[in-house]
Formats: sequence, structure tokens, C-alpha cells
Amino acid sequence: MTQAYLLTIIGEEVLENVIEKDIMALGAKGFTVSKVTGRSQSSVRDNPWDGENIRIEIITSEEICLKIVQHLKDKYLERYPMITFFHPVTVLRMQHFY
Amino acid sequence: MTQAYLLTIIGEEVLENVIEKDIMALGAKGFTVSKVTGRSQSSVRDNPWDGENIRIEIITSEEICLKIVQHLKDKYLERYPMITFFHPVTVLRMQHFY
Amino acid sequence: MTQAYLLTIIGEEVLENVIEKDIMALGAKGFTVSKVTGRSQSSVRDNPWDGENIRIEIITSEEICLKIVQHLKDKYLERYPMITFFHPVTVLRMQHFY
Repeated sequence: MTQAYLLTIIGEEVLENVIEKDIMALGAKGFTVSKVTGRSQSSVRDNPWDGENIRIEIITSEEICLKIVQHLKDKYLERYPMITFFHPVTVLRMQHFY
Repeated sequence: MTQAYLLTIIGEEVLENVIEKDIMALGAKGFTVSKVTGRSQSSVRDNPWDGENIRIEIITSEEICLKIVQHLKDKYLERYPMITFFHPVTVLRMQHFY
Repeated sequence: MTQAYLLTIIGEEVLENVIEKDIMALGAKGFTVSKVTGRSQSSVRDNPWDGENIRIEIITSEEICLKIVQHLKDKYLERYPMITFFHPVTVLRMQHFY
């Protein structure tokens, strides 16, 4: 078992493909996607964030996790509603994720 | 990046709206909802917990996280099947959650 | 509130029932299931891991968590695509999980 990071990205469905390409290009070995809905206070007015979103989850090294977070910050953070967070996890069969 | 808490509530679908109102009133700035199913040993008999449930996830401060947990405990815990747990996460763009 | 572990298993949908039986037999008191999709680099060739998967989540003690992880390793890891990871969480109403 190995220490790794679980990185979670919640964003608009339209961004799914481009984010997935980005994270694989940055070194992720895979990801899991699920459909979610959400609401945030700031979106009550103009509603861009209400409704269907996707959650992308990535198990990866701390280094690649931080690289992806920096990339999301640079590319999407000012233009799109998006939630990004991460935390350490213990993983079985780590060779699949590094 | 900022330290925050990810609070997860898994409960019956009928409670979704009232829990969402509660958590926003207690200071959460948003939440994510997904559909899940579940089973717990204690429900094998009378089956209240089998089947469709919702998972509500909230990124928030430790203070608001604990306030919500206390509220759930007081209002729902004895009367409804519900799972509530939380853990620290590192979050990008924290101003959206506090 | 009590310290516990959140154990997450992501695997093929066909394994859902057998994994659920296994984890309950090993001492878990319940679990939550959600549908996810996923991709991993190693599956780009033969595609066994693309598409519909299930995510099983279990709140349990560290001891039972490690027992389940060991069991998954012995029984499934070499034969099936599967992601397994865990991390500590603080849980409300722990008596339901031990």
C-alpha cells in the first residue's frame, strides 16, 4: 500500500472532455467520473452552477496532483464555476496510478 | 490553497430539500448532491435504509462543519437513517466556500 | 464522534454483488453504492476498464478496513481492474458502523 492523493474536480459537464485530456497530459494514469448536481450561493443570481455537473476523481502522486491543480487554476478558475480539492489516501496497487 | 473540511451526509431522498435548507442557513455556501444506494445491517429487518438515498457533500470551514454536524445530530439522528462524516481537505479557490 | 475509515472500492459492475457479500462477511455493517465511469491508461489497449463501474464505500474500523483490503488484494487484484483506497474520517453515530 502506498500514500497518494485523491484529487476531486467538480465542474460543468461541458468541460468534461477537455479536463480529462488535460489531466492525462499532465501525468494522471486514469480517473473516475460521476454525475452530480450542485448549488452555490454565488450562483443563485445567474444560475450558471445550478444543475448538472460532473465530478472527476483522480488518484495520483502529490507532484502530479499539484501540477493539475495549478493548471486548473491557470486555465479555468477565473472563467468557470469549479470546485477543486484534494487529500491524502492510502492506495492498494499503486503501480496503476504513477 | 486553503485547508477546509469536506462534510458528507448520506440520507433518505425525502430529506434532501430540508437538509439543504438547513445547511445553507447554517452558513454553507454550496453543496453537491449525488444519487446513491446503500444497505446497512440494521436495516435488513425493516428495510428503511435500503434503496435510493442521496449524498450531500459540503466544502466548508471546520466551524460550520461542526455546527452542521451538531444540527443533524439534534434534528435527524434519532429519527432517520443517516450517515455523516467529515475530513480535512485542501481546497483551491476558498473564497467560494467561506 | 468517532474516528473511522472510509474505504472506497471502484470496480466492474459485475463484481458488485460478490464484493458486497465479501465485505459484509468480513465485518462491515453497511455500504453505499454509486454508478461511475472511468478510464485508466492501461486499459486504453484492451478496454476492460472503460465504461460503467460501481463505487462501493464503506465506513468501518481500521481493523476491518485493512481486513477487507487484504481480502480484495488476495481475491481480485490480479484478475480484475479495481481501485481501492482509504483514509480516516470523523463519523457521527459510530455504533452503526462497528
